[in-house]
Amino acid sequence: MKTFMDKDFLLQTETARKLYHEQAKNLPIIDYHCHLNPKEVAEDHRFSSITELWLGGDHYKWRAMRSNGVDEKYITGDASDWEKFQKWAETMPYCMRNPLYHWTHLELRTAFGINTLLNASTAREIFEECNEKLQQPEFSARGLMRHYNVEIVCTTDDPADTLEFHQAYAKEMANGKCSNDQCSKMLPAWRPDKAMAIENPEMYKAYIEKLGESADCNICTYDNLLDALQRRHDFFASLGCRLSDHGLNEFYADDFTETEIRQIFQKVMDGKQPTADEVSKFRSALLLEFARQDADANWTQQFHYGAMRNNNSRMFRKLGPDTGYDSIGTWNTSLQLSRFLDKLHSEGHLAKTILYCLNPADNEMIATMLGNFQEGPTPGKIQFGSGWWFNDQLDGMERQMNALSLLGLLSRFVGMLTDSRSFLSYPRHEYFRRQLCNMIGQDVEDGKLPIGEMPFIEQMIRDISYYNAKRYFNF
Amino acid sequence: MKTFMDKDFLLQTETARKLYHEQAKNLPIIDYHCHLNPKEVAEDHRFSSITELWLGGDHYKWRAMRSNGVDEKYITGDASDWEKFQKWAETMPYCMRNPLYHWTHLELRTAFGINTLLNASTAREIFEECNEKLQQPEFSARGLMRHYNVEIVCTTDDPADTLEFHQAYAKEMANGKCSNDQCSKMLPAWRPDKAMAIENPEMYKAYIEKLGESADCNICTYDNLLDALQRRHDFFASLGCRLSDHGLNEFYADDFTETEIRQIFQKVMDGKQPTADEVSKFRSALLLEFARQDADANWTQQFHYGAMRNNNSRMFRKLGPDTGYDSIGTWNTSLQLSRFLDKLHSEGHLAKTILYCLNPADNEMIATMLGNFQEGPTPGKIQFGSGWWFNDQLDGMERQMNALSLLGLLSRFVGMLTDSRSFLSYPRHEYFRRQLCNMIGQDVEDGKLPIGEMPFIEQMIRDISYYNAKRYFNF
Amino acid sequence: MKTFMDKDFLLQTETARKLYHEQAKNLPIIDYHCHLNPKEVAEDHRFSSITELWLGGDHYKWRAMRSNGVDEKYITGDASDWEKFQKWAETMPYCMRNPLYHWTHLELRTAFGINTLLNASTAREIFEECNEKLQQPEFSARGLMRHYNVEIVCTTDDPADTLEFHQAYAKEMANGKCSNDQCSKMLPAWRPDKAMAIENPEMYKAYIEKLGESADCNICTYDNLLDALQRRHDFFASLGCRLSDHGLNEFYADDFTETEIRQIFQKVMDGKQPTADEVSKFRSALLLEFARQDADANWTQQFHYGAMRNNNSRMFRKLGPDTGYDSIGTWNTSLQLSRFLDKLHSEGHLAKTILYCLNPADNEMIATMLGNFQEGPTPGKIQFGSGWWFNDQLDGMERQMNALSLLGLLSRFVGMLTDSRSFLSYPRHEYFRRQLCNMIGQDVEDGKLPIGEMPFIEQMIRDISYYNAKRYFNF
Repeated sequence: MKTFMDKDFLLQTETARKLYHEQAKNLPIIDYHCHLNPKEVAEDHRFSSITELWLGGDHYKWRAMRSNGVDEKYITGDASDWEKFQKWAETMPYCMRNPLYHWTHLELRTAFGINTLLNASTAREIFEECNEKLQQPEFSARGLMRHYNVEIVCTTDDPADTLEFHQAYAKEMANGKCSNDQCSKMLPAWRPDKAMAIENPEMYKAYIEKLGESADCNICTYDNLLDALQRRHDFFASLGCRLSDHGLNEFYADDFTETEIRQIFQKVMDGKQPTADEVSKFRSALLLEFARQDADANWTQQFHYGAMRNNNSRMFRKLGPDTGYDSIGTWNTSLQLSRFLDKLHSEGHLAKTILYCLNPADNEMIATMLGNFQEGPTPGKIQFGSGWWFNDQLDGMERQMNALSLLGLLSRFVGMLTDSRSFLSYPRHEYFRRQLCNMIGQDVEDGKLPIGEMPFIEQMIRDISYYNAKRYFNF
Repeated sequence: MKTFMDKDFLLQTETARKLYHEQAKNLPIIDYHCHLNPKEVAEDHRFSSITELWLGGDHYKWRAMRSNGVDEKYITGDASDWEKFQKWAETMPYCMRNPLYHWTHLELRTAFGINTLLNASTAREIFEECNEKLQQPEFSARGLMRHYNVEIVCTTDDPADTLEFHQAYAKEMANGKCSNDQCSKMLPAWRPDKAMAIENPEMYKAYIEKLGESADCNICTYDNLLDALQRRHDFFASLGCRLSDHGLNEFYADDFTETEIRQIFQKVMDGKQPTADEVSKFRSALLLEFARQDADANWTQQFHYGAMRNNNSRMFRKLGPDTGYDSIGTWNTSLQLSRFLDKLHSEGHLAKTILYCLNPADNEMIATMLGNFQEGPTPGKIQFGSGWWFNDQLDGMERQMNALSLLGLLSRFVGMLTDSRSFLSYPRHEYFRRQLCNMIGQDVEDGKLPIGEMPFIEQMIRDISYYNAKRYFNF
Repeated sequence: MKTFMDKDFLLQTETARKLYHEQAKNLPIIDYHCHLNPKEVAEDHRFSSITELWLGGDHYKWRAMRSNGVDEKYITGDASDWEKFQKWAETMPYCMRNPLYHWTHLELRTAFGINTLLNASTAREIFEECNEKLQQPEFSARGLMRHYNVEIVCTTDDPADTLEFHQAYAKEMANGKCSNDQCSKMLPAWRPDKAMAIENPEMYKAYIEKLGESADCNICTYDNLLDALQRRHDFFASLGCRLSDHGLNEFYADDFTETEIRQIFQKVMDGKQPTADEVSKFRSALLLEFARQDADANWTQQFHYGAMRNNNSRMFRKLGPDTGYDSIGTWNTSLQLSRFLDKLHSEGHLAKTILYCLNPADNEMIATMLGNFQEGPTPGKIQFGSGWWFNDQLDGMERQMNALSLLGLLSRFVGMLTDSRSFLSYPRHEYFRRQLCNMIGQDVEDGKLPIGEMPFIEQMIRDISYYNAKRYFNF
């Protein structure tokens, strides 16, 4: 019987253990997509308690607590830090087999050195030990990034964002406050979803005004909008941005004319509600424009599609978005996705692309879609993104990597990202690397991969853990 | 090499074996959803032969025989009991890897004590031994329920049903004919599908008349219909009913006005064919009304969706429904499902809910949908139903439990039901428990679950096998 | 640790090894669906180099090379045979976990006796050894078929095809040039996709003219078309054809009148573009006619559905179809499929049928669809086709066989086909048989299948490997 979460956690064969400990374990982390708050990095935030760090905004944990019958008071309500932590600790054993059970204990072990299992009876001692340690300077935002050997993080930023914290942090780095091999680099990433959200004219107009201000131009027409976006795109690029990201339900590839799009924009700016058809056309048009800007800048574009958001309208009114009320949607989007990529490829504007599907039933569709648009000289130009959100767990990662292996080239995979809002989420890279090494190690021991190619296999582990991303993104 | 179907059947690790034998095996069965005939319970039916018991109405077996090239004469035709059994026995080895192979042999072993493998050469001896035993009083309907330690069964009943057999059986129980710890309780469950089936006006009108009679009121308007349903709902509740159940292709959540619905009802009652749009609106409306009645009565509502029924029209005309001509349909219903649940949640009428999908490709969609509407104080208020119909087998149960584990809380799962028409189906609970213990046991031995939490893990096994259902349904 | 690809490759238990080596290994191959060029068989083609054989038309390898960043020059361009082979050899290690890695090494071992791993450093030596061997007479097209113990191949042929090579080869066989137990039989198979492709009137008219010539009749009306197809169908039958095959996105089962279809045909023949609705109706009509002809001739009809083809329009214009730019589409086609099969069953025209889905998310839908139309006396009359195209790999084959096992009868499965354009693809039958034996062997060792039925289990292995197909197709 294997011990729970010991040094060989998830590594079921000798080959897996060697691959992990000798190849993967010590490589730095490139976290090319996350939702960390740049302010907290720039200001080297100190956390008041483990409750802030764990339960302040983690909707995974909130969902689990609600599923366990915990009253909302102890989740997003006015209960004390200790009360909330206690409820979480009581919920913990009920999370067995959910990734939260592993994540939580990995975080306790790797950040705090705590090997005690969290439950109702250990809650108080763990709460106190964590909070005591969080007083120490090495538990600051940057301290945790250093601790986890994070080389680069890419945050997720709106085009209208000032990026002031990125600038401040970069200046501090440049001033040598921090030697290069100790400090993590922080780059912005471009997430222009709001520029497409015409379905709510009032909010859209407010956003367009804000975007105009940030771009220092007056946005009266669709052409103004494209111009403003380009200016901000350039500005992001000047601060080292190399990736965009788009959150979509499904893909859009309607036919349209420029005239139509200009009229739809005008209509919305006049405060009128666009029809469903107009929304779809507008999305189709702007999605192409986004993609062209990325191609011109040699960025990588990311598409996260398939989420059905804010399903619970009562709680949405109370708590807003990203509070644990999202789920997996079912859409047949293969045809639109193909058309969208084909339009870009036809006109020579298909940037490096990462496709993330939320519904694992789409894994095979996506893994074969890649092949339609692969071309030299970039190996793995079109990528199947790592198991996303609900799929960021052992089974989800395994299914994504198996689909990619069987239908494409796993060896060219840019690997893991955290997609997280928490400075404690870095062990997910460890989790991923262990799973990767276990899969490959098992294949070697089963005679499905040749021991005679061991140097290549070792290289493949290092590549997927770190080097592929480093090369692919041109940081 | 493990022996076929010995006491450690399906239990591949020492931990799995301990969990099953020490925690799960001896717990009673709560069969909260089945299709047993209440008359057969009330009258303590005696079975004339193993052919009646096995092949009288089991469309799983009929399908298997047809797939094996057996002539319909030996399936639903006029062949003798022995001939039909013989054909089934000949088919048996061809069913290897199909759940029927395990189910059949589990039933032979646990009910009849027969360990011989069924095939053409053993058919006669098994036929005779079974038939001989069926003469004994302990092989009556109630005898089998006692034998399998069944605590409660919930049958599936139409609102217009008199429930006379439930009443008779309950009276007999109350009169002390049977001490509490020996006899199974039988409760009705509410299945109002026919009240929604306006797509066939003629059949609908006949049904509405019958419903009116049972509710002792004249149903002339839509409001009368709702009133009649409420009366019957109250009547069911008075006999201990705690669950409803709905068979749907997909979910319906159209916008509508009460006026529209009233007009559609009138149109159908006038014998006119409603349009597809009207059918969808009517379903949307009535589905909400059903749900409100359940919420008011603090029942649990069950939704079985995704079946495509009666695909073979020639055989439908000959044999009617539920004869083995149904299959899995593909519908993208996530959006309507979300809207339906949200409407109920918004108005405070979301009852405890169990969602069963027939297409396992929907597992992850459903397992994440739950989280949108979970809330205290009921742990696991929204449930992902156990592998249903075609998924009620090792792989299907494992996939359902894995999806629930990874995307929700397995620990709060109300577990297994038989959904069967046969008094011999209870070993499916054993099958389920073995599979559950095997999965959890494997995780413990692989170091994915901590041995240090063994008491909790044991409790989780007991909960999923029995106690969660007992608490959840408030019987 | 198991050795890579030794004699027990993929066989993880003792039972699996015995089943494979004693039951499956030496059985002949019935390759009932492939895309071999009949001319190359008739002329006993000799291959100029391993590059021609491997890279001349294999779009699986082309896709892999593009994914690996190789320039198109070395894929379909004017690079030399050696340069192309070299690029492929360099790509090989990057294909680890992709079926190409196993297929390539299986082909090297079984055809050329080469056990060296292919990579950049071994490329030259392997290139030369292969090319040298290809000079030998036993490496001709027919030589390879003999080497792999191929009993029958069915090619894929258009109704307008002269089948001259089938005739020539059959004549040669009949003249005793080759004793029966040494030479493979080659039969045509009927693929009338082009007769349905009215969406491009110009190409369609040209095709109809060609079809008319081959049928020796003037096709002016829809009735002429059906008549011409029937003549060619008879001609194919006279040359031993026993199967049809249809490539579809999804299924079509619209309602239509004969008058409508005649008008649509006329419209297209007048050079006018049919509407989407007309295309769908025409497909619905012709699909039924195809099926009736097959039923009347007692053929087996195959449907390969779910491919999204020619997604990359720039490369389509450059290279044409079947060049590696196809992928898996998402369509909800269960309802139309059911209606289509039901129409045929209702009128007594449902031929033996094999359904292949490209999207493995449809596996369970298909595996349950079969049961709706199974009937004696043909065991397994409706078949779930073996893992197709992207699914023709270990995981895909396992998922298809598991779905079929759990939801139908694996024992009646007609098994593997190559679906390949290459004379080197026959080891895929070995690959399939190893996987099959491994799955069954594992079940026996796990106590899920009874050792007491070993003779039947051995028969099942032989049946699925060879005898089921032999019986089912009536060759």
